[in-house]
This record gives sequence, structure tokens and C-alpha cells, in this order.
Amino acid sequence: MTADENATRTYDGTGVSPLAGVGTAVWYEPGGGTELEAPPDPADVDPEAERDRFDEARDRAREELEREREQTADRVGEDEAAVFDAHKQFLDDPQITDGVEAAVDDGVPAEHAVQRAFEDPIEQFAGMEGKMAERADDLRDVRDRLIRLLTGGDRVDLAALPEGTVLLAERLTPSDTAQLDPDRVAGFATAEGGRTSHAAIFARSLAIPAVVGVGADLTKIEADADVLVDGEEGTVIVDPTSDQRERAAGGRDVEIREEPVTTVDGKSIEVAANVGTLAELEGAVRQGADGIGLFRTEFLFLDREGPPDEAEQLEVYAEALDAFPDGRVVVRTLDVGGDKPIPYLEQPDADNPFLGERGVRRSLGPDADLFEIQLRALLRAAADGDGRLSVMFPMIATVPELEAALETVESVAEDLEAEDLEYAIPELGVMIETPSAALLADELAERVDFLSIGTNDLTQYVMAASREDDRVAALHDPLEPAVVRAIARTAEAGRAGDAWVGMCGEMAGDPDLTELLVGLGLDELSMSAVTIPEVKAAIAETETTDAEELASRAIESSTKEAVQKQITETNL
Amino acid sequence: MTADENATRTYDGTGVSPLAGVGTAVWYEPGGGTELEAPPDPADVDPEAERDRFDEARDRAREELEREREQTADRVGEDEAAVFDAHKQFLDDPQITDGVEAAVDDGVPAEHAVQRAFEDPIEQFAGMEGKMAERADDLRDVRDRLIRLLTGGDRVDLAALPEGTVLLAERLTPSDTAQLDPDRVAGFATAEGGRTSHAAIFARSLAIPAVVGVGADLTKIEADADVLVDGEEGTVIVDPTSDQRERAAGGRDVEIREEPVTTVDGKSIEVAANVGTLAELEGAVRQGADGIGLFRTEFLFLDREGPPDEAEQLEVYAEALDAFPDGRVVVRTLDVGGDKPIPYLEQPDADNPFLGERGVRRSLGPDADLFEIQLRALLRAAADGDGRLSVMFPMIATVPELEAALETVESVAEDLEAEDLEYAIPELGVMIETPSAALLADELAERVDFLSIGTNDLTQYVMAASREDDRVAALHDPLEPAVVRAIARTAEAGRAGDAWVGMCGEMAGDPDLTELLVGLGLDELSMSAVTIPEVKAAIAETETTDAEELASRAIESSTKEAVQKQITETNL
Repeated sequence: MTADENATRTYDGTGVSPLAGVGTAVWYEPGGGTELEAPPDPADVDPEAERDRFDEARDRAREELEREREQTADRVGEDEAAVFDAHKQFLDDPQITDGVEAAVDDGVPAEHAVQRAFEDPIEQFAGMEGKMAERADDLRDVRDRLIRLLTGGDRVDLAALPEGTVLLAERLTPSDTAQLDPDRVAGFATAEGGRTSHAAIFARSLAIPAVVGVGADLTKIEADADVLVDGEEGTVIVDPTSDQRERAAGGRDVEIREEPVTTVDGKSIEVAANVGTLAELEGAVRQGADGIGLFRTEFLFLDREGPPDEAEQLEVYAEALDAFPDGRVVVRTLDVGGDKPIPYLEQPDADNPFLGERGVRRSLGPDADLFEIQLRALLRAAADGDGRLSVMFPMIATVPELEAALETVESVAEDLEAEDLEYAIPELGVMIETPSAALLADELAERVDFLSIGTNDLTQYVMAASREDDRVAALHDPLEPAVVRAIARTAEAGRAGDAWVGMCGEMAGDPDLTELLVGLGLDELSMSAVTIPEVKAAIAETETTDAEELASRAIESSTKEAVQKQITETNL
Repeated sequence: MTADENATRTYDGTGVSPLAGVGTAVWYEPGGGTELEAPPDPADVDPEAERDRFDEARDRAREELEREREQTADRVGEDEAAVFDAHKQFLDDPQITDGVEAAVDDGVPAEHAVQRAFEDPIEQFAGMEGKMAERADDLRDVRDRLIRLLTGGDRVDLAALPEGTVLLAERLTPSDTAQLDPDRVAGFATAEGGRTSHAAIFARSLAIPAVVGVGADLTKIEADADVLVDGEEGTVIVDPTSDQRERAAGGRDVEIREEPVTTVDGKSIEVAANVGTLAELEGAVRQGADGIGLFRTEFLFLDREGPPDEAEQLEVYAEALDAFPDGRVVVRTLDVGGDKPIPYLEQPDADNPFLGERGVRRSLGPDADLFEIQLRALLRAAADGDGRLSVMFPMIATVPELEAALETVESVAEDLEAEDLEYAIPELGVMIETPSAALLADELAERVDFLSIGTNDLTQYVMAASREDDRVAALHDPLEPAVVRAIARTAEAGRAGDAWVGMCGEMAGDPDLTELLVGLGLDELSMSAVTIPEVKAAIAETETTDAEELASRAIESSTKEAVQKQITETNL
């Protein structure tokens, strides 16, 4: 044991991004709701003036939220930006506004009225489990924002932290996290929070090393301390050893491979990135993606008054193609419905939205106009893409749905021809997300160039277990033998039907599963950019015959534990 | 053309039960909301007295609803009885009660205040589509009930109609329909309503010939006219020809076969009934069921303060066995969650309840105590059942779930042994409802005595299309090739694993599909009692080799239209 190690202190938490970073500790004190002075005598308070102050604070909060929503959508992604919509809704929640106004009318100043009106709702949510408990954080965020605006408190400028900062905080709200600049922040650690908290999701999207849920011990770390945050191990280390420091500095010791990789025996596997905004293209290139395996187009449609026109879309698709001059870009047509509302589209409530009108069901129904415009833009973009553009349809469950989508492509091509516009028919494919699509993969493969397995939805439907319901979370595992069989069946059907088969669900980005997926016969794996180097490394170490043996053992397994055991034994 | 036919008038509507009946027309005038006299001068109205009258009417309405709920649960079933709970909720809806009280305070008598307060909500629902529009009928029902109670109006005694009545009405509310006595009512026809209206569901459950949605033309039929209601053809015929009359009198010309049937070439297919209450056992026997293929046990648990104890359950299971001294009784263990709430069980809201904690997921989780008590009662009932009792588990998605359920059976048996109580291990089986169960049918079949395919849920999950969402109704079809393949796979796995394979979803009761199902290899078909004679007749006309050829063509079909075409061509 060296002197270095003697001084080292390690705190355990939940690692939320597979990255490590070293820097100087900065404690973040958000201020906010808990430090107000005692309120004045009610007789000295003018209720009308306080109501006006509250209304003004609400207006300003709304403006801030809109600005931050936009920043987040650009920098992180639409899914993450949606939280700001929820915050805006809280600003208008009658339980809260009525509570504030009632207190103000009783002679309580606006900031104290806000603090009081949020107490009950925060307590209610905090007492619940899972995702609901995280709403309490959202409410605190909104409350603190209003109190800051009412008391004129300054906001700590998280966007302007010194380079090499390790940020420490009790908790980070979504608006806090969205401001963090990955070039300045070497990592962050929080006392509270879990893997699915907004802060954790942001950390993964921005590739910031992060550990959450460290507990009260975190406060033992002094400001200006030398701190290593290891988001893979889930540890926060004060005064790390030189070994630890080196490992963190060197990332995960995984080289970034810019060239496509093959297995040991020479089988090419394309490793691509899933992206949901233009901003993510750069990260994908930097991490060595061979191309884009899932280009989500929802960001083009969200957070605006009306849909984007053909020219705007054409530009975006062209930009994606430009980012990968030698790589394929697979664009998924608009996939809304389910949990993805868009204000200007009519989307009636459904009791089971995941089993409702989503994806291509809308494109062939109420959103037919949008679908046609999107296909026009895609076919025009394909003209300049040297065959690198691919288009795939989400939520296909039947052959006639696929045929209707393919006919729309034909008719759009005819229109473009008649209008004398340059176009090309891109490579066309189907997402395998419904059990029906997996069961009919042979029929689908005959009709398209490729299949792409979306394991998140496929698992949800095969297991009849919502990916958002904590009570059935144990069932939501792509290593369940039924899911493995559905994947195997799809890959086999692709081979038989001369269609390449990719995977763009989360499963594709887990390097521990790479060998299994190669063995199941996948030609392409697409994932969050951050895991690309590791998956490429895993492919380069894989022997196809070993992989195929692993896959056939997995298909014959009767439990996910048995599948996991096969994988673990192979990795030993 | 005979003289008879000249006099005949035919009105088209939607047939809702595959039965026909002839009788004498009686027009039903519910009275209610639309015929009030003009209200008196507000100055002459005592608001306090009117409030009291309203409160009293609400109390009496609540009592009536509770009584009718109980009757309906006994006579029709728990699912149908649930509508009365919705009605009770409307009685307490603040939009309505506040509206009534505000009007009363303005000097409007209670009955007029009720009429006024319901106007907006009824209009809102009536303007919606599908199921929501049917809520308008429920609201009218509640409104008319309150007005009748307030004005002392007599209710037409639908339970005491003369024998051989064909009831005609603008519409029938759930409470109207629930009172109808199948022994007295030869049929009913309504101007409004659709296939999924409560009246239609009741008609099917009570086996009353019924046609709905005839339109305003229905009023052209005079009281006391001679009327034939053909629920299969969807026609209402005034002064039917003697041919038509004979066909109706002879039912559908399908004899009731009390003995088990075989195909032409001698293959035995068990034809059993789905039942959800003890009251339905009698109908199942009468229609010639060989046994019970799905005994739903939810009715034991619904509509009460706490769960039934072991002794009460033992009695019910024994009664079901007694009803079929030579037949098998397949009991499904408690299947709650999804859309089946039970007041005394903690069932948190879920965003996608069909993909949540339901069926065996609850029995192995929060409802473990109930599961054990139910299994104790079942094992004790099996002791007297001469091996005729079978028990199956709903919503199994993994092998470990099944193994946990089987272990619970073992441990319950050990307890009963230690307590020196008589018991036997019943035949044990798995419902195939999740795509996962169909994909793992081989693994499941090895571990149990039988598999039973629940096509309603299986279709919903395979197609990722809620069976309650009108917008994806076209996808919810068991003839979709993916569903046909899942059934074929299950039947094959059953054969290989030495487990018999049944089907208890709605598909099993369609005689047009019987040949396909025989060809797919099913050993048992279980359905609503009303279709048993026709399915038995269809089996008796089936040649197994023809059926198998049909099935293999269906499996190779790429669209449901192609499957349907195969079936139609075979039936020609």
C-alpha cells in the first residue's frame, strides 16, 4: 500500500454513465425554498400587490422554461426537453395556484405563499414510489425557481463553471443539469437520485461522468478537494491514487476505432449510432460510428407550432448524410403516439397508449399528409446520398401496412418525377418491434432491403410488460428467452429473405451482449454513441463460431438467468 | 311471391346475438327527462326543500343501483354489472351535483334542475366517438332514474312483460336490459345503439334475440304487430312469412348435442363453456357443453368488502363440478389487474394497465395470500372431483413464473397433508396469452398437463393493439397471420410436450373458424354457451385432413384477408 492509497477515501453510489473523470470539487448550493426569512405581519402585506408579484414571477418562470426547453432540445434531445413542459404545467396547476392565491389573500407574501402551496404536493409525490417520487424533484425545481424570481436571488451560473470542475450537490434538477457544459465539467456526484432520474439521463446523453445516490456522506467531501467520479464503478474517490487517476484520464482504456471492424474470423459488423438531434451527429462521428443506425425524426416535429416543411427536412437529412460521407444513415419515419404527444396533431387519450395508434399506424392514418411530405424530403435527400440513405417504418405489424407504406414511397416518387425534381428510392426497411412483425419476419424480409430490431419495444410487447411500469420491470429484459427467440427468428428470416438485419434497441449497446448478438446473426448494431468503442472492441475479439454456439445455447435456455449464465461463462 | 311476402316489411339494423325470435310488439316508453311540465315561478320554490328532495332521490337511486347491480351480477355476470358502479359515480359527479344545487338555489325545482345539469355532460359525451359516446346513454339512464324518483313516475315493469313480447324502444339502458326475462321476451329491437353497447352485451349474455341501431324507421312498427327479430341477419321483420317464422321458431336449426362430438373421421374435440358466474352453469348444461373450459373466478372477489374465504370458494368449485358430473371443469385462478379493479386490493394506477401487473403477476406478488387460499380451496375441491378439476394460471410469461406457481401448489398440498385435510392435485395448465408464452410454449408444455390459448389477449399483445381502442380495432383480429402462427406454434408445442391444448378466447366460439382450429390441432374449444350447438355441428362436419390442409394454407398466408379467403373457399 502506497502513501497515496492511505489518503484515498471512496464513497459508493449509483454510476449512471460508463465514464470517469477527475477534477476539483465545487459545491452547488441552489438556494431556493428553504431559507426564507420569517414573513412580516399580515396586516403589512398588500394582497393585490403580492398577487401581481406572483403573476409576474410565473410569467418570467414560463419564459425561462421555454428558453431552457429549447437549449435542452438542441443540446441533449427532445425526450429530455419534455420535462420542461411538465414544469410549465405545474406553473398552471390549480392546486398550486389556488393555494398561493389563498395564502396571499390571507396576508402572506408571495414567496412564502409559494413555499407553503408546494408543501403538500411535494410531500404527496415524495411518498410514492419510482417515477412518481421523481415528480417531487420537479416540483422542488419549480418552487425554487419561483422563489428565486420573487426574492431576486441570483442563480449559480452552472454554464460558467471553471474547467475541470467536479460538481457536488444534494441533488441536481433537470434545469441544473441541462446547463452543464461537458467541456468544463469533469463529472458530478449527488447525494440523492437514481439511475432513471433526469440528472442521470442527461449525464448519459451529454457523456458526463456521474454518480448519483451517494447519500449524506457526500457532504464530507470538502470544496476544492481532488475528486474522481467513476460512473462505471459508481464510486466517488477523494484524492485518488495515481493508478486510479491514470485510468480515469485514459477513459476506459478503449481505443476509438474510426474504421469499420470485423470479428476475428473476418465477418463485418456495422457499428452505428442512434441519434435524436443534429447536435448528436458530432458525438457519433467522434466515437467512431460507421454511420447512423437509427436517426429519430421526432425532434423535427416537437416543440413547434406546426410541422416542418419539405425544404427544412431535406436540409436536415442532407446534414446527417454529410456527417458520414462513407457511412449509411438509417432514418426512421415519424414515430409519434404512445408516449410521444405533439401539440399540433390530434392525439386522443388512450387507456393503453403503447397498444394504440402509434408509428406507421398514424402515418397511414391521421398523419398521412406528414408522411408524404417526409417521404418527399427523404427521396430528394437520397438523390445526393450515393445510396447511403436508408428509410425504415416503425410499428409495422402486418404485411398490408408495409405494402401501403411502400406504395406511398412509389407514389411520392411518381410525383417527384412528374415535378422534374431529383430523387432516388432509398434502401427501405422495417422496424421489428411488434411480436407480429417478428412472427412474420419472413414475409416482411421478402419485401424490403433490411429489418431493424427495436429491442425496447419488442421486449415490452413480447413480455406484455410496459417499459415504464416499475412493478413489471423484472420482466422487461431482452435476455428473456422469448425475446432471444424472437430476435433469432428475425435474423434467420432476414438471411433467408436476403435482407440485412440490424438492432437499434438498448441491447445493441451492451458490450457484454455483443458476442450473443453476433452469434444470433445480426449484421449491424446501433447504439448511443458513448458505447461504440467498447462494442467495436468486443466485435474485434469475437469468433463467429463461438458466438453461434453461444447463441444456440441461449435459444435453448428456458430462463433469462440461464441465458445470462451462458454469456458470463463465455466471457470468462 | 306469396301473399305472405307481400305484407312483409323488413327493417335493417345491427344484429347482436346469433338468435331469432317472433312475438308481439310492445313499445317501451321509459318516460324520464324529456316530458316535464314547465317549471313554476322561482319565487314559489323553496330551495332548501328542493335540495332535500334531490338528496333523497339520490339516496334512493343509489339503493336501486346497488340492488340492480347485484341482480345483474347474478344473472348476467360481473363485467356487465360494473356499469352500475359507473352510474353510482355519476350520482356523485361534482359537475352534476354542483349544477343541480346551483339551479335549485336559483329557484328551479329539483327535477328541472336535474334535467338541466345533465344537458352539458350528455352533449359532450354524445359528440365523441366509440365507447365514449355510449357514456351519454349511461348519463341519460341516471338522469331519467333521478327524474322518475323525483316525479314519482312509475317504472315500466320490464320484468313482468307478457310472454312472447318483442320489445321495441328508442334505446334500452343497461338497467332496462338487465330486467328483461329471457323466458318472456322473444327479442328486442332499438332505434339506437351499436354492437358494443351494454344492451347488445346483455342480449348476448342472456341469449335474447336482438337488433340495435335500426334508426328512426323502427317507429313505423305498430304496437301489437307480429314481429320477428333476427339477431343473426340484423333484421326486424313485421308480419314475417311462414318460412321466416318457422326458421325463427326452430332456432337456427341446430340441434343441441348433449354428447361429446368427433370429426367425421373420429377425432374427439371437447366443446366446453366459458362461464363467469354460477348462474351461467345451467345455460352451459342446457346448450350441451361437455364441461367448463374457462371458469373465471373474479366474480367471487368482486362487489364485496373483502375476499371470499376457503370454505366459500370450496363450495363454489364443488357446485361447478356437480353441474358436469362427466365433464372437465377448468378453473382459472384469479385474474385481476389490467381493467379489472377490486376495491379491497391495492391496485395503483398504471399508464398502460394491459402491460402491467395482472393475472399471475399479482398472484405471485401482492396477492400471494389470496392465491394460496384459492389453491387450498381448489385442491380440496379436486379431492371430490374424480380428476375432473383442472386449474390454469393466467398471464404466464416466463418459465420461472410457472415454476413458482407450481411450487405454490406443492406447498399448499403439503400444508393440507399436515392438516389432515382431503385434497388432490388437479390437472394443471397455463394460459397462452402473452407472445412470450406462445414463443416458449415448448418449455411450458413440458411442465404442465395442458395449455389454453386466450385469443383475446394473445391477439392484443401479438398485434400490439388494445382490444379496447377503436382506432386500432382493425388490427385486433385473430385471423391475422401472426396470431394464427402463434396458435399453430402453441398447438405443436403441446403435442410435442404431451399436453392437451385448448382455446378459450372468442375465436373458439365462431363456427366459421371451427375447421381451421381443428386443423391447427386444438383438442378443446371453450366458448359462450350460446354458440356451443353450432360449433359441435361444425366439428361433426369436419374432416381432419381437410382441416389440416386449410390450417397449413392459413399459416402460409401473408394477410388476414388471405386467411379469410381460405376459410371462405373451404366453407363453400
